[in-house]
Amino acid sequence: MSEYVYDPAAAVAFSDEKMIKVNLYESPRLFCDVYCLKPGQTQRPHDHAENDKIYHGLTGTCHVQIGEAVIPLPAGSVAVAPAGVVHGVENKSDENATLLVIMAPHPRLSA
Amino acid sequence: MSEYVYDPAAAVAFSDEKMIKVNLYESPRLFCDVYCLKPGQTQRPHDHAENDKIYHGLTGTCHVQIGEAVIPLPAGSVAVAPAGVVHGVENKSDENATLLVIMAPHPRLSA
Repeated sequence: MSEYVYDPAAAVAFSDEKMIKVNLYESPRLFCDVYCLKPGQTQRPHDHAENDKIYHGLTGTCHVQIGEAVIPLPAGSVAVAPAGVVHGVENKSDENATLLVIMAPHPRLSA
Repeated sequence: MSEYVYDPAAAVAFSDEKMIKVNLYESPRLFCDVYCLKPGQTQRPHDHAENDKIYHGLTGTCHVQIGEAVIPLPAGSVAVAPAGVVHGVENKSDENATLLVIMAPHPRLSA
């Protein structure tokens, strides 16, 4: 396997305690994580003044909140939270769910 | 459908002439495209001095070149071309293929 290739499915890890973020790649320009949510787990709504976030549904279905809207995000769909727009995630389903999440620029490494 | 949600599968468009890029979202911070490649179509190797590019296999299998490595990228896998590293894509298979492609920052809008 090349150093440049990642398998999100192999990176998945769940916890009974909270949503798990597994980082695949990061630089000052972006991070690429896998978010792993058991039923009922959430990332509370928050915002980033200067960073866009992309959610891409991988398995299961999470609901994403972006601004006022709360939207089911089935596997294969993409949602974007532009900079400054409140966003969060909740797994309201009965099944585990995973998301590929990209944020640019990296909120910590670009500071 | 929320203004913040995109369906890559619905955006897919192929051409006999060349690989098609369909933009889903763009800002100075990033772009998110769907690349659509018929068998034999390519994006020739090139690089960007200050931009990272993520490839996420959606359907079919493309080969991505990143640096010296040429790697099959099946649906579900992720490859990252860090800034300054040569990268390209080729559909060497007998089936159509699609990729979700994110670049950050946006090479034109961030200039």
